[in-house]
Amino acid sequence: MPQSGSMRLLLAGFGNVGRTLAGILAERDAYPGLADLDAAVVGITTGSHGALADSRGIDLASALVWFREHRRFTPGRPDFATLDTAGAVAGLDYDVLVELSPLSVAGRGEPAITHVRGALERGRHVVSANKGPLAWAYRELTALAEERGCALLYEATVMDGAPVFSLARHGLRGNTIERIEGVLNSTTNVMLGEMERGASPAEAVAAAQRAGVAEADPAADIEGWDAAAKVAVLANALMGAELTPDQVERESVAAVTVTRLAAAGSRGCRIKMVCEAFRDGGTVRGRVRAREVRRDDPLALVEGTGSLIRFVTDILGTFTVAEERPDLATTAYGVIADLFAVRLSRA
Amino acid sequence: MPQSGSMRLLLAGFGNVGRTLAGILAERDAYPGLADLDAAVVGITTGSHGALADSRGIDLASALVWFREHRRFTPGRPDFATLDTAGAVAGLDYDVLVELSPLSVAGRGEPAITHVRGALERGRHVVSANKGPLAWAYRELTALAEERGCALLYEATVMDGAPVFSLARHGLRGNTIERIEGVLNSTTNVMLGEMERGASPAEAVAAAQRAGVAEADPAADIEGWDAAAKVAVLANALMGAELTPDQVERESVAAVTVTRLAAAGSRGCRIKMVCEAFRDGGTVRGRVRAREVRRDDPLALVEGTGSLIRFVTDILGTFTVAEERPDLATTAYGVIADLFAVRLSRA
Repeated sequence: MPQSGSMRLLLAGFGNVGRTLAGILAERDAYPGLADLDAAVVGITTGSHGALADSRGIDLASALVWFREHRRFTPGRPDFATLDTAGAVAGLDYDVLVELSPLSVAGRGEPAITHVRGALERGRHVVSANKGPLAWAYRELTALAEERGCALLYEATVMDGAPVFSLARHGLRGNTIERIEGVLNSTTNVMLGEMERGASPAEAVAAAQRAGVAEADPAADIEGWDAAAKVAVLANALMGAELTPDQVERESVAAVTVTRLAAAGSRGCRIKMVCEAFRDGGTVRGRVRAREVRRDDPLALVEGTGSLIRFVTDILGTFTVAEERPDLATTAYGVIADLFAVRLSRA
Repeated sequence: MPQSGSMRLLLAGFGNVGRTLAGILAERDAYPGLADLDAAVVGITTGSHGALADSRGIDLASALVWFREHRRFTPGRPDFATLDTAGAVAGLDYDVLVELSPLSVAGRGEPAITHVRGALERGRHVVSANKGPLAWAYRELTALAEERGCALLYEATVMDGAPVFSLARHGLRGNTIERIEGVLNSTTNVMLGEMERGASPAEAVAAAQRAGVAEADPAADIEGWDAAAKVAVLANALMGAELTPDQVERESVAAVTVTRLAAAGSRGCRIKMVCEAFRDGGTVRGRVRAREVRRDDPLALVEGTGSLIRFVTDILGTFTVAEERPDLATTAYGVIADLFAVRLSRA
């Protein structure tokens, strides 16, 4: 049951990250640092797996058990609701929309953009783990959030939930970021590792799928769309750019052959799919490319599902952040970090 | 001339970092991100090189030229003042004491502790680049700051000015930090690199001195006191410990021989002086030790004056931050980051 004054959350999406987040919130007592995160989930919507709503706060532990057993929410639960995300965004009473639906490249960020816009127009805060709205509609949505006095936060969109945007907001303040580069797509990084060990490209894709990082249709990763969307979010949020993913130059991991990997190896290098945002005259350009990096370059050290970002700034110099072996809790944590920031901005 | 509403700074110390900070503030227009950092220096004190004071704001460009030419402040300047730091802390009118004096291991953090305490007792904010007060008097000074409603910030004490403490305050919120490990002492890291390339320990010390990182008396670095002080600050600030540097186990870099380095190399490893803070039962322990790390461990990748910290947390997992080739501006930036945080907390 939510305490009076609890932050009321609407979870739009109940996939891996949504369920992991719900699990952490349900087991909050196991995490000493979460003692003062006072949040209650009042709605959960999904694409096609039913919805729950309870203004007194959904019992997350039982919702998780139900979903595991039935693979969907059904009218057997007293808190079952006939609601889609659009209806919940417009009709439920919540403080924060937590947008957890998957990235849609074909939809150019929709329908998540519409959900985020709808929440902001109602004066509700938004925490998005979906990078689509920030990659395709950054200016519009940040302007709307500012106009309505709402928070729009998105720590989980890049590098899972590791601090990237909060780092830049607080820890790099006063610096101008000249350049950002990083290894940020797990599927292609797992693939390149497998190919270095002798796998064919097809075997490498299968390995990434077995590792649980590649989608059943891994095209968005392989063709660089996921990485391009991350570049757009980074460039827009941290370098004042106005880039959409289609404006980011993309190279497919399919351009990297076993021969090319071996040749790089013979030069003491590795090939990594590197995301780049950099200033070029008065503008900011974005690029995703297969880059040969020396083995002692931190970019070369990123293994498997790890990720890394290097910031080049005018005062601080070069600063790098890296994450090793993230799991679903890492991404869910990005949402939690944003909820702390929302809470602090309300206090 | 300070604008009305400028934050008035007292710089206690005018060594390399103080002069670099003054240079950045004097050339503020060259850094777009500093446009809204409205600060004026109303006092500069030194150990034995004279002092300046001007309530209208010291002309930093001319002070820097003067100091370069005369190696001290002298009565020839109209803003010359007969003031030591204690007198300035007690008597000048300032908003923020910027403590820039060097670490004194023999003095167990004094006289900087007294200066910090004096400023806080007067209700002034403190930004310290000197780790002594935080290593030897953390609880007392943070409690005093809280009681007086003042900021006590110290981003420049560990990893130069790279975001470590602001990262933990904002980006890792809600996590419990289980373990911190890092390579944080430049002198010993430069020495180990030289010794790997065949230098004797004495040659290695000389190389670190030529690189400008080792003091004329490098004992505090070699015996691990600088590193132990950093461990104490990290453990106290981020893990709730109450450690002083003398309670941190120390191993001297002198324990690392050329033979031991070569043996590690033959196993695909390097030896690094690693700072560690970790939970052990209900307490937090600190340790500085020569540790053999695999070449593909990020700790092994830290070259020369670079540094790195790995945080192991309960929710986010493992998160690493690293800095390459810092210069004096990097450390000065830590002070600037803290000034932004002070300014924000006043707003």
